[in-house]
Amino acid sequence: MSKQFDVLVIGGGPGGYIAAIRAAQLGFSVACCESNPYADPKGEPRLGGTCLNVGCIPSKALLHTSHLFEEASHGFAAQGIDVGTPSIDVAKMVGRKNGIVKQLTGGIKMLFKKNKVTLLNGHGAFLGQKGENWQVKVGDSVVEAKQVIVATGSRARHLPGVPVDNEIVCDNEGALDIAAVPKKLAVIGAGVIGLEMGSVWRRLGAEVTLLEALPEFLSLADIDVAREAAKLFAKQGLQIITGIEIGDVKISQKGVSIDYTDKDGQEQRLDADRLIVSIGRIPNTEGLDADKVGLKLTERGQVEVDAHCRTNLPGVWAVGDVVAGPMLAHKAMEEGVMVAEIMAGQAGHCNFDTIPWVIYTSPEIAWVGKTEQQLKAEGTAFKVGKIPFASNGRALGMGDSSGFAKILACAQTDRILGVHIIGPNASELISEGVVAMEFGAASEDLARICHAHPTLSEVVHEAALACDKRPLHF
Amino acid sequence: MSKQFDVLVIGGGPGGYIAAIRAAQLGFSVACCESNPYADPKGEPRLGGTCLNVGCIPSKALLHTSHLFEEASHGFAAQGIDVGTPSIDVAKMVGRKNGIVKQLTGGIKMLFKKNKVTLLNGHGAFLGQKGENWQVKVGDSVVEAKQVIVATGSRARHLPGVPVDNEIVCDNEGALDIAAVPKKLAVIGAGVIGLEMGSVWRRLGAEVTLLEALPEFLSLADIDVAREAAKLFAKQGLQIITGIEIGDVKISQKGVSIDYTDKDGQEQRLDADRLIVSIGRIPNTEGLDADKVGLKLTERGQVEVDAHCRTNLPGVWAVGDVVAGPMLAHKAMEEGVMVAEIMAGQAGHCNFDTIPWVIYTSPEIAWVGKTEQQLKAEGTAFKVGKIPFASNGRALGMGDSSGFAKILACAQTDRILGVHIIGPNASELISEGVVAMEFGAASEDLARICHAHPTLSEVVHEAALACDKRPLHF
Repeated sequence: MSKQFDVLVIGGGPGGYIAAIRAAQLGFSVACCESNPYADPKGEPRLGGTCLNVGCIPSKALLHTSHLFEEASHGFAAQGIDVGTPSIDVAKMVGRKNGIVKQLTGGIKMLFKKNKVTLLNGHGAFLGQKGENWQVKVGDSVVEAKQVIVATGSRARHLPGVPVDNEIVCDNEGALDIAAVPKKLAVIGAGVIGLEMGSVWRRLGAEVTLLEALPEFLSLADIDVAREAAKLFAKQGLQIITGIEIGDVKISQKGVSIDYTDKDGQEQRLDADRLIVSIGRIPNTEGLDADKVGLKLTERGQVEVDAHCRTNLPGVWAVGDVVAGPMLAHKAMEEGVMVAEIMAGQAGHCNFDTIPWVIYTSPEIAWVGKTEQQLKAEGTAFKVGKIPFASNGRALGMGDSSGFAKILACAQTDRILGVHIIGPNASELISEGVVAMEFGAASEDLARICHAHPTLSEVVHEAALACDKRPLHF
Repeated sequence: MSKQFDVLVIGGGPGGYIAAIRAAQLGFSVACCESNPYADPKGEPRLGGTCLNVGCIPSKALLHTSHLFEEASHGFAAQGIDVGTPSIDVAKMVGRKNGIVKQLTGGIKMLFKKNKVTLLNGHGAFLGQKGENWQVKVGDSVVEAKQVIVATGSRARHLPGVPVDNEIVCDNEGALDIAAVPKKLAVIGAGVIGLEMGSVWRRLGAEVTLLEALPEFLSLADIDVAREAAKLFAKQGLQIITGIEIGDVKISQKGVSIDYTDKDGQEQRLDADRLIVSIGRIPNTEGLDADKVGLKLTERGQVEVDAHCRTNLPGVWAVGDVVAGPMLAHKAMEEGVMVAEIMAGQAGHCNFDTIPWVIYTSPEIAWVGKTEQQLKAEGTAFKVGKIPFASNGRALGMGDSSGFAKILACAQTDRILGVHIIGPNASELISEGVVAMEFGAASEDLARICHAHPTLSEVVHEAALACDKRPLHF
């Protein structure tokens, strides 16, 4: 006999578990299926998806430890703290990270219980339709539900012909579990994951080289931010080579040898002990048996959806990395909430224009809204307010005053069009920018709002003042 | 011959220097006088006032260093970082702090140059009126100005009969320059300054006892926050004794002995190597010769002003610690901007309901708007959303997950009435609360705004969701 639910969510990552919880809060009977055990010692499926198990959360734990290690190694002396020469116990660092992941993935199980979401262990694949219900095979069972939310996420793209063993060649998963600090680490792909993982191992002592195929570094970020980042990362010792084309990658037990053509057309070779491949991610639609029900996919293998995450099939929705848009956990969560609320007859809505971006390097990078180059390309006249953290007392007190905040506002209306921050705690500072943009704030609004002193957020305040050429502390 | 300006600002602290810069930006000829050299080796007056020289900025530098020292001593091992037993070089720590102060106070001099504000070295005191102008004695000169802004700030209140030598008995100034970590440190007054300075020296190894006359700890803060703070500080080893009455304080070369009556009426004695007295601050109106021009003061010795910082004299204004309201640098700055803009015929405005408060303990405490006890006292029906940082992945990654965010919203309209945070980076997280309140946001607004994952700001987001009893991660 098949199990019956109002809603079945396929995939227990941020998009899926949030959709399931919200739908259950709204009164639906909800099941969520998940088959990936990640690092679970008993092989039981773990909730939380890539983000929690092998993405955002574990990387932040390692970034935090490695940041402190770097502070201890290079920053403490100037503050009068003597710690000799710090050493890192990688196994312990990784063990702590694993503990946090375990705690949080268990936490989602508790949230499922609290919200009465049924957790089904098993891979979900479409079988067909039966009356008003969709039939989905989950493991060995058949589940029937009127509404199905596809939240199968994404997986790392690998280099053709270069198998990932997560020993010598790692993707995002192996990059979090390297057993000892490599002497030389190569990273192919200088995007968010490459930069974050490269930063972790560089801080712990690795010599890190990032190879990037695109001619511009961090082309998604505001051009000023990308330039500042390139400068700061180079100073830290992260070697970033852009505009390259990868050739042969030879793997031995001792390491890896990467042939590439540089931007001037010269053949080059990079030898390293380890390689991290971070060249993007592929939506997980294989194994979903989309064809059995006629679920439409895009040419890129994503589930095709409208702005409300509706697929071509009635009652079938898709959210998160498996659909178009930035592969960000909080974007997936927003979509999950939206879909659950629309299913309940509410006016679910997701403002894709105010989804913040964060890169957890040091300094952190965060932004919301449009970049300077986007505004130029679309021909919008704009004002710029840009203030360095070096003018900020809190940043100086923290000994971390690199970077700046930059606000772009419409030249005609003064409405804030983008907030770009590279600097300490940018990931947290961006939230007031998002709130301001959601309220359609003008730069003058932000300029007239009191900011606590001394805080880093004063730099955002000053950037707003600078849009009107009247900063007070710069 | 007397010097003539459109505007004379008396006092170069945050209220004064900002008023001077803003007035100059608006086209006035502006002078600002300052006489306090603080720690300047040449005895030259220093800009920045208490905040920059002996308050917010230097304390944050020491708090940062002492926080790292504590992390190194107690937090590193769990992360796999081995640093042996850290030691602190207090002179170096204090030297770094002094360097930051020097840099920033010099920075304000540069800002004066950039904005064409004339800096006058010397104490300002009213002389009289001459035609449309006020005459003010600045050092040995006479300055005439149509508009005068009194921004003379405040100084530490001392205990009667207990002279502050800033060796054994310190106020806020000496507390920043203690030459070696005391074994036992007594603090009289468990307010913001007492807690921050007590935290610095406790983290560095002192046994710290705070004596507080009020029966309730942190009665200004939301009651939940105060209770959580009391619990967390006690766990850290800060001994806080409330409801006491100070008796004899005996000072010898070796230390200090404080008799007090505890809340049960028992006589007690506290012996310590050092004493910090942090029992509030007194507005600086002595030496202003207010009586020479009939400038009206309050019974508490403040300059009496209306909501726009107008005194009883035409063209005479007062801002910052010398007037009523919280003694916060950013409140003073807001008033300074307001006064300059009103003088220029603009609609200067200062929203005293959205001035954030911050206490830089560990965890930090920050709030904006009303507390639960204020709402109860005024009979406003409200909803509460309260979420612990222990549910937050970023906080766990940082190894700093104590505290919570609490949002109070109107039961009828859902408008946010207060945001209260005790937890990591509360000082920065509060800014989105301030922005939301300035826009009259409902808790649902904040609940529907995307927050980057993983960030601490998600706790504020969840607190907003919890106002409607639908948190997603708790």
